[in-house]
Amino acid sequence: MKENELLAGHIQELRRGTVVLACLATLKRPYYGYALLEYLDEAGFSVDGNTLYPLLRRLEKQGLLTSEWDTAEARPRKFYKVSPDGEALHEQLTREWHALDGAVRSLEQGETR
Amino acid sequence: MKENELLAGHIQELRRGTVVLACLATLKRPYYGYALLEYLDEAGFSVDGNTLYPLLRRLEKQGLLTSEWDTAEARPRKFYKVSPDGEALHEQLTREWHALDGAVRSLEQGETR
Repeated sequence: MKENELLAGHIQELRRGTVVLACLATLKRPYYGYALLEYLDEAGFSVDGNTLYPLLRRLEKQGLLTSEWDTAEARPRKFYKVSPDGEALHEQLTREWHALDGAVRSLEQGETR
Repeated sequence: MKENELLAGHIQELRRGTVVLACLATLKRPYYGYALLEYLDEAGFSVDGNTLYPLLRRLEKQGLLTSEWDTAEARPRKFYKVSPDGEALHEQLTREWHALDGAVRSLEQGETR
């Protein structure tokens, strides 16, 4: 049990940074919070609402996302979309991701030893 | 400037989880703190001592690393090595990493849309 918690903590730390990357990649099309949550979950980025919703607000505040209310349906929904600054960050994070992945693979193969 | 700080923060978040993975992978052979820092830096995992040294102590406390003092040289050095539990965690984190990498690549290619 204690060991599982330990594992869960380290896995969560590994996943944490990928959520921003995944949001920026996905929000090239507008999504509202819950639909994005479902999409990310299916795409292999498990994140819960308590993490995702504040993150979306934070990214909007940072100018990386824009939002728009859709009031056409019974329940108004806030749709988020990536901004030009967010797209630029997405490109940089993607490059960083591939660099990290290269580094992880090299370590595995012991190439740098 | 402000934009660079924003980028740096998000990149750091992306890197953070990989440091544990990289430590566990590297410490199949014993290293003392500073030598590990240099090794990781060369291998593409930039991390500073203020992050790495407390992390090593934390991983030891969690039973993922063992340590041994080498007092043969003028300046005694604490060498860390991965424990069997640490090796098991390393395997699981590596699997998780590849799953995340697959998810990132799928998102990029828009395969899941």
